[in-house]
Amino acid sequence: MRIGFIGTGVMGSGIIANLLKHDYDLVVYNRTKEHAKDVLNLGAKWADSPAQVARASDVVMTMVGFPQDVVDVYCGQNGVMKAVKPNQLLIDLTTSKPSLAQNLAAKATQRGAFMLDAPVSGGDIGAQKGTLTVMVGGDRDQLNQHLALFHAFGQTVRYFGPAGSGQHAKMANQIMIAGTMTGMCECLAYAKAAHLKLDEVLATVNNGAAANWSLANYGPRILKDDYTPGFFVKHFVKDLRIALDEAAKMHLQLPATDQAKRLYEQLMQQGDSDDGTQALIKLWWK
Amino acid sequence: MRIGFIGTGVMGSGIIANLLKHDYDLVVYNRTKEHAKDVLNLGAKWADSPAQVARASDVVMTMVGFPQDVVDVYCGQNGVMKAVKPNQLLIDLTTSKPSLAQNLAAKATQRGAFMLDAPVSGGDIGAQKGTLTVMVGGDRDQLNQHLALFHAFGQTVRYFGPAGSGQHAKMANQIMIAGTMTGMCECLAYAKAAHLKLDEVLATVNNGAAANWSLANYGPRILKDDYTPGFFVKHFVKDLRIALDEAAKMHLQLPATDQAKRLYEQLMQQGDSDDGTQALIKLWWK
Repeated sequence: MRIGFIGTGVMGSGIIANLLKHDYDLVVYNRTKEHAKDVLNLGAKWADSPAQVARASDVVMTMVGFPQDVVDVYCGQNGVMKAVKPNQLLIDLTTSKPSLAQNLAAKATQRGAFMLDAPVSGGDIGAQKGTLTVMVGGDRDQLNQHLALFHAFGQTVRYFGPAGSGQHAKMANQIMIAGTMTGMCECLAYAKAAHLKLDEVLATVNNGAAANWSLANYGPRILKDDYTPGFFVKHFVKDLRIALDEAAKMHLQLPATDQAKRLYEQLMQQGDSDDGTQALIKLWWK
Repeated sequence: MRIGFIGTGVMGSGIIANLLKHDYDLVVYNRTKEHAKDVLNLGAKWADSPAQVARASDVVMTMVGFPQDVVDVYCGQNGVMKAVKPNQLLIDLTTSKPSLAQNLAAKATQRGAFMLDAPVSGGDIGAQKGTLTVMVGGDRDQLNQHLALFHAFGQTVRYFGPAGSGQHAKMANQIMIAGTMTGMCECLAYAKAAHLKLDEVLATVNNGAAANWSLANYGPRILKDDYTPGFFVKHFVKDLRIALDEAAKMHLQLPATDQAKRLYEQLMQQGDSDDGTQALIKLWWK
């Protein structure tokens, strides 16, 4: 099966490598061709635009940065929608707006094609190892017919409902992480101000009812002043803005998530957009 | 060794049962004698006041509700401080104010005695099983001399520094939990509003970078509308108020913890003080 893949960043490249390992033929496009070098060396073919990718493939997958990038890739002048074929399956892996996912699915349907929203969690390491969790919304039959494709890069593949539901599930995930990240940073800020030994605080707090993945994985990095990105601040801010916009549409108030968003925006204003999310501690440790 | 124990609530009774199992002699007092019935049946002796408990024992332990209860028990008319003996060790297990712990330790020193602050985590189940985590502040030699006593009810016993440090470590723990609880409830509120299947959201979100103890343990209870207390709302509000007061004294802002406190206060104003902390979801699911 010929897979078109648009977006060869860290996440996309990991997924592409796993698809190649599973003997899929890959045609790729990326805004900056230079960043596709690694996957081209692994055997992927190059195409000159998203439309060319769609023409050259059976299934199109996209993994880009922001909702506007998704719009550009699908609806731009040489976008996927210009070349989509009847019965072709389009899969957006980007974490993006549920409403945009619905909008694109409708456009695909108008053209006799199908679209799934399928954001992932598990980070760059999950992408490399093929152990991502994939949250899928859209046509369930299409997912079932392409399960082998999903399992080439995803360990857990879960269907959540009609178009946009995969994005909603991902938003629920990010809302939870907003809580663990702000809690962790305020916990460490307090402990340091109280002159406690931070490694012992981490060991103790992560041993009981306060235990969480962020504390176990990012806590030790913070203690080493290691702010290299597992997940970019700028992408987390994007996710939290989407979550809060969607919540507002549903007349739902999320005050703790809103507080987390404001703290991360403050961090971005300090110039730390390209740090990892654990850099939130810098708001306290100047 | 004769242990005096003041406070035979759920936590205190569990700890007393473990001390009796380890062949310590117990003398107990509780504001409401009726609630001491179970431990008296197990072999503990009754004393008529905190002062009487201090007279009849080598080490005095206290596990009461609020900082004012700690003040009453130690400094009241028939309080522990009225009868404390030279070299006697006093241990407060209540989660209370670091500044109060320092104040009481100073009072003990004036009387030639010793005092440790040693709040615990692990809940009623940890108290029953003897698997609590104990966070200790005060005289390190006193802790080392009484390690066997601490390990009769605590699996992990950790020393954090001078008087008040045990309370500070516990505050760091509660600040972290404020993040996991608010994150979990807003995650579930969002997922429900988006018409996702909540059991699948729990399974997915708890499978990756958002994973945490609250979600794993309280998430399923919320889905069953089970708000019975593992940990009371009123006690969590007390803890968060202490944490934020102490932070303010250290000129430290904790906006996410402050938001969590305001949400839990709102829950208390609705009349849900005696529910478990997972009842926070009621702010969204009326």
